Amino acid sequence: MNETSKSSAAVARPKFLRKGEQTRAAILDVALELASRDGLEGLTIGLLAEKMKMSKSGVFAHFGSREDLQIEVVRLYHNRFEQDVFYPSIKEARGLPRLQSMFARWVKQVTVEIALGCIYISGAVEYDDRPGAIRDHLVAMVQAWRDALERSIKQAVEQGHLRAELDVGLMVYEIYGLILALHHDARFLNIPGSVDRAQASFGRLIESYRPTGSSAAPSTPKHSKSVAKKAA
Amino acid sequence: MNETSKSSAAVARPKFLRKGEQTRAAILDVALELASRDGLEGLTIGLLAEKMKMSKSGVFAHFGSREDLQIEVVRLYHNRFEQDVFYPSIKEARGLPRLQSMFARWVKQVTVEIALGCIYISGAVEYDDRPGAIRDHLVAMVQAWRDALERSIKQAVEQGHLRAELDVGLMVYEIYGLILALHHDARFLNIPGSVDRAQASFGRLIESYRPTGSSAAPSTPKHSKSVAKKAA
Repeated sequence: MNETSKSSAAVARPKFLRKGEQTRAAILDVALELASRDGLEGLTIGLLAEKMKMSKSGVFAHFGSREDLQIEVVRLYHNRFEQDVFYPSIKEARGLPRLQSMFARWVKQVTVEIALGCIYISGAVEYDDRPGAIRDHLVAMVQAWRDALERSIKQAVEQGHLRAELDVGLMVYEIYGLILALHHDARFLNIPGSVDRAQASFGRLIESYRPTGSSAAPSTPKHSKSVAKKAA
Repeated sequence: MNETSKSSAAVARPKFLRKGEQTRAAILDVALELASRDGLEGLTIGLLAEKMKMSKSGVFAHFGSREDLQIEVVRLYHNRFEQDVFYPSIKEARGLPRLQSMFARWVKQVTVEIALGCIYISGAVEYDDRPGAIRDHLVAMVQAWRDALERSIKQAVEQGHLRAELDVGLMVYEIYGLILALHHDARFLNIPGSVDRAQASFGRLIESYRPTGSSAAPSTPKHSKSVAKKAA
């Protein structure tokens, strides 16, 4: 997930597909839907064939093995995540605006997934103790997203939006926690207002990493006011 | 999980058991181990019978159904969680010391579970879209623990350790996020130093909820100093 990898993401939904490619793409679409609902391990060729009204061997013809299919589902999910969350965000100005966009779009993505389930989050639990190619692909893609978050945080520091001495890894950990807890609270506990909480906590997090004594923060009039009051 | 429910927790490991009860307890022990590894849905009577060197009908004799067994596993996990995390913590002074102990013991619990897997966290993903008795039990037990956290936070406010106007639900959401991200980073991504990060972030969280201008906080000399500097 770097700024020059656009071409590989574009491969996911090309405009003109040959017949075989169309079928393969249609199978993958349904496979992603099933994996989001039942987990990647719940994905079976039998269920997929039934949903597609195809024979099992027909499905197999498009994917070498069940594992290959699972890995393709992870890739498809990742490509969509890039297109919906990452690429629109890097159009924003470097620094805080970009980081805020990444978080806001990620929250939006999770909100959609409250109904559907998230491959990354359920995959982390499914594969945390299952070594192998699927786990390796999942980890690599989650790691690519974390790297993108890290880069944005570092740029926000360079721009003077966030304080120089912050611990980038710690901040990524904290942001990830907000997303995991949002998914948990909204999807498992059905707590209303979970999205508002995620946004409020992200705001608190950003505030806590502002440069000390900074009044350069345009989005935090309250903060600047209270500093002014203290100074008065 | 309230302070008068000790008796029900004590039922989990009584000292003298009749033969049938001993067998049942031994089956449950192994069932909890298997469910921690494979998830509650991965728990089968067949696998359990094999592990116990018993017949399937022998295992069934102790539990009415697979679902009853799964629910008993959830109860056992909850009782152990109470004994390892909750009861030792409520021996601490009301307010911040108790809340800090709850978090520290919870982190310790997750650390053990980095090897083994956590029923609450994997269960949340397994059952978030599967209505039924198991999900209901899981939600009730997670909710009991959240209620205990809420009570501790409110007491910390009453004691003047935390600021009066804090949003209790928001703080519980943030604490839960730290734990979920710790589990995720340590178990799925194998990031070293995850426990240190959890502790550092919890410290930052507590600081952010200290009463404003408070110098009553013995563990925050840095904070008081920077306030003093600003005032000067």
